[in-house]
Amino acid sequence: MRMVDLIDKKRDGESLSAEEIKWMIAEYTDGNIPDYQMSSMAMAIYFQDMNNDERAELTMAMVHSGDEIDLSAIEGTKVDKHSTGGVGDTTTLVLAPLVAAVGVPVAKMSGRGLGHTGGTIDKLESVDGFHVEIAEDDFIRLVNEDKLAVIGQSGNLTPADKKLYALRDVTGTVNSIPLIASSIMSKKIAAGADAIVLDVKTGNGAFMKTLADAEALAHAMVKIGNNVGRQTMAIISDMSQPLGYAIGNALELKEAMDTLRGEGPDDLTELVMTLGSQMVVLGGKAETLEEARGLLQQAIDSGAALDKFRTFLKNQGGNPEVVDHPELLPQAQYQSELPAKESGVVTEIVANEMGIASMMLGAGRQTKEDDIDLSVGLVLHKKVGDSVEAGESLMTIYSNTEDIDDVKAKIYDNITISKSGTAPTLIHTVITE
Amino acid sequence: MRMVDLIDKKRDGESLSAEEIKWMIAEYTDGNIPDYQMSSMAMAIYFQDMNNDERAELTMAMVHSGDEIDLSAIEGTKVDKHSTGGVGDTTTLVLAPLVAAVGVPVAKMSGRGLGHTGGTIDKLESVDGFHVEIAEDDFIRLVNEDKLAVIGQSGNLTPADKKLYALRDVTGTVNSIPLIASSIMSKKIAAGADAIVLDVKTGNGAFMKTLADAEALAHAMVKIGNNVGRQTMAIISDMSQPLGYAIGNALELKEAMDTLRGEGPDDLTELVMTLGSQMVVLGGKAETLEEARGLLQQAIDSGAALDKFRTFLKNQGGNPEVVDHPELLPQAQYQSELPAKESGVVTEIVANEMGIASMMLGAGRQTKEDDIDLSVGLVLHKKVGDSVEAGESLMTIYSNTEDIDDVKAKIYDNITISKSGTAPTLIHTVITE
Repeated sequence: MRMVDLIDKKRDGESLSAEEIKWMIAEYTDGNIPDYQMSSMAMAIYFQDMNNDERAELTMAMVHSGDEIDLSAIEGTKVDKHSTGGVGDTTTLVLAPLVAAVGVPVAKMSGRGLGHTGGTIDKLESVDGFHVEIAEDDFIRLVNEDKLAVIGQSGNLTPADKKLYALRDVTGTVNSIPLIASSIMSKKIAAGADAIVLDVKTGNGAFMKTLADAEALAHAMVKIGNNVGRQTMAIISDMSQPLGYAIGNALELKEAMDTLRGEGPDDLTELVMTLGSQMVVLGGKAETLEEARGLLQQAIDSGAALDKFRTFLKNQGGNPEVVDHPELLPQAQYQSELPAKESGVVTEIVANEMGIASMMLGAGRQTKEDDIDLSVGLVLHKKVGDSVEAGESLMTIYSNTEDIDDVKAKIYDNITISKSGTAPTLIHTVITE
Repeated sequence: MRMVDLIDKKRDGESLSAEEIKWMIAEYTDGNIPDYQMSSMAMAIYFQDMNNDERAELTMAMVHSGDEIDLSAIEGTKVDKHSTGGVGDTTTLVLAPLVAAVGVPVAKMSGRGLGHTGGTIDKLESVDGFHVEIAEDDFIRLVNEDKLAVIGQSGNLTPADKKLYALRDVTGTVNSIPLIASSIMSKKIAAGADAIVLDVKTGNGAFMKTLADAEALAHAMVKIGNNVGRQTMAIISDMSQPLGYAIGNALELKEAMDTLRGEGPDDLTELVMTLGSQMVVLGGKAETLEEARGLLQQAIDSGAALDKFRTFLKNQGGNPEVVDHPELLPQAQYQSELPAKESGVVTEIVANEMGIASMMLGAGRQTKEDDIDLSVGLVLHKKVGDSVEAGESLMTIYSNTEDIDDVKAKIYDNITISKSGTAPTLIHTVITE
C-alpha cells in the first residue's frame, strides 16, 4: 500500500477501505508515513469528507494506536460524558456525583488542559487535600464501592490522535467534522467508556459557532459511537453566554455544590438534568429519560447527591466539610462589584470574552507551565434576558490584585444592555440516535 | 505572517496577496516553512484554485527563488519552446535549427531527464563528438553568430519549484492547473526566455488526458506569461498515438534531419511548422503566422535549415557528416519487422505503451543512474488511419538483443486494427492570447 495512492483516492472523492484506514493510522503512528503526506490527506478529507464507515474505522484505528483502559473490573455500564468545551462549564462537577448517586458508575480519567479556567482536576483541587494520584486498584475499588472516582490521566492513550491533532493544528485542518468526531470519540473509547453522552456547545464561546455545524458534529459522533458498539447520545446546548453564574475554579466548585443541593442556576441545573437523564438511561438505571429525570430529582431532594459528593471528596483525601462550609475553599483577596451603566435588559454577555477576563485574573493556563489561581474569577448576577437597573451589580469580580481596570473594561465591552431581549434557548436539540 | 493563516485563507476560497505568496515561497525555499504545511497548502490550492494574479505571483516567486539566467548579451528576442511531453516527440530537434535559420535566436539550456527515451541532449549525443559542455561565453557568442546553441543545465534554477514538485509528487497534488502552470512557466522564465511557445499534449500518452484539461493548462500558462511580461502562445496537440514515426534517440535524430530536409512525417512536419510560426512571430521576424510559415518553408526548401543544423553540430564538436550519412549514427544490431496479424485500418496505437516498449529496449531511463542505449527503438510504418494488409510490417524494431518477444507482445497488445477509422486531429487548438 502506498500513502500517495490513498491521498489520490480521497482527493478524488472515493472512500477508503477499513484495511486502508487501519494501515494508514498504524504506519503514521509508527512514523513510517511522514507528516507531509498526512497533512495533505487531512486537507483532502476536509474537502471530500468521510462516510460513516470510514469515520468508525478511523476512530477505532486511533483507539488501537495506543493503550486502552480496561474498566471491565467495574460492574455496570460505564457511561462517560464529554463536552466540546465552553466558559463556566461546571457540568462535570455536578453530573459525576449526581448520576453516581442513582447507581451509574463514574470512572473518570481527567486531565488539566489549557483554557480560561483549569480542568476538572484543578477545580477539585480547590478542596484541601483532594488528589487524583490514586492507584489503579483503588480507583476500581472506589468506583465499585461508591460509584465514583477520578484518576489523573496515565498511559499512552490514542497516540495517533495526539500526533494527528498536533499536525491538524498547524495545517488548517482542525475544522473537519470527520476528524473532530473521530478524535473525540477515540479518546472516550480508549478511556474505557461503554456508553457516551455528548454535550456539543454552540455559539460564540464554542468551537462550533453555528447550530448547523454543532448538529453535524453531534450526529457524526452519535453515529460513530453506535457504529462501534458504544451507545451514544448527544445534546446541542447554548454557549453564547457563560453557563451558570460562576467562572473560576473554586467559584465553580461552590456553584456545583449549590446545584447538587438544588440551589444552582437554572441553566446549569437544566443542562445537568438533561445530560444526567441520558447517562442514567445509558447506564441502564432507567427505561426512559423521564424516569431518569425523576431519579435524579429525588437524589437532589433527598440530599443523596450532595452526600455522594462528600464521600467522593473524602475517598480521595479531600475535606468533605467544604460542602457545608464553602468558605474553606481558596478565597480571593478582593471582591469588586461591576455596576450596570444603564437600565434595561441584558441582551449579550459574550462567553468567550468572559473566559478571557477570568484568564486575565489568573484562573486559567495559556501554557502547561502556567500557575493557576484557584480563588479568582467572576460570578455573574445577571444573565441574558434579565432586567437591570443602572448602578445595580452585573457581577462580582474575585481577584488577588486591586488593579483590575483592564478586566473591567474587557467585561464592559462585552456586555450589552438594551431595551428588550430574551434569554437564549439553552438546549437546542437532543440527539438520541 | 503565519503559514497556518495562509492555509486557512486558501482553504476558505480566498485569494493570497502578492506579499503572502512571496513570503511563502521564500520561507519554504529557506526551509522555514515545513513540508507538512506546504503539502496541506498544495491540497487546498488543488481544491480552491488560484486566480490569475496569484498564479503570476507564484510563478515569479519561484523564478526569484534561485539563479536566473541572463541572456541579455544575446541580440533579439529569445523565444523558448516547451512541450508537456509525449512519446516520439522530436520537435525540439527540428524546431531549433529551423527557426534559427530564419533568424530567431535559440539559446537552449537542456537536461537529460527520465523517460521513454532520453532528453534532447541524449539524442544530440548520438552524433559523434557532440557535447554541451561549453563555456557560457562561447554559448552566448555562438548564439549571436549562428543563432543556435545548446548548453547543459547549470546553476540553481527555481529551487522552490524543485522542492515543491518533489513534495507534490508524494502528496497527491501534482494534478493542479495553477501548480503545473506556474512550475513550467517559472522554469522557462528563469532560463532566460523573453517569449514562450507551448505545446500542450493531450491524449493517453500525455499528462493531460482530456482536451478540456489540456486547454485549461494552456490558457493558464499563456495568461501567466502575458501577465509577467513574457509573450506566450500555445497549441494543444494530439498525443493519443506517437508523434512522427521514430521513438528512440538516434532514430529520432535521423527523423529530425529528414524533417529539416522536407521529407519528415506529415504530423511532425505540421506540428513543427505550427510551433515554428509562433516562434518566428514572437521572435519578431514576421508579422503574421502565415508570413512566418512562408519563411520556414523557404528555409526547408532552400536547404538553409539543414545547413543550420550542420553548423550547429560542428560548433559543438559534432560530426556534420551525419546529416548526409545517417549510417554514422549508432546502429542497433538487430532489426525486426512486426507484421500485421490482420488486414484493415489501424485505429489505435497507444502512445504511452509504445514509449514503454522502447524503454524495454533500453532507449530510456527510469532512474538517473540508468545507462541509455542510443541506437534502439521503434520506427512505425503505419499510423492511425492507415490501411494495412495482413503480414505487412507495422513497424521496425531496432534492438541489441535477439529476444524481444515481450516487446512484441506489448506492442501487439496496444495496436488495434479494425474495419474503418481515421487519423486523429493533430492540432486541436491554437491559443495566442
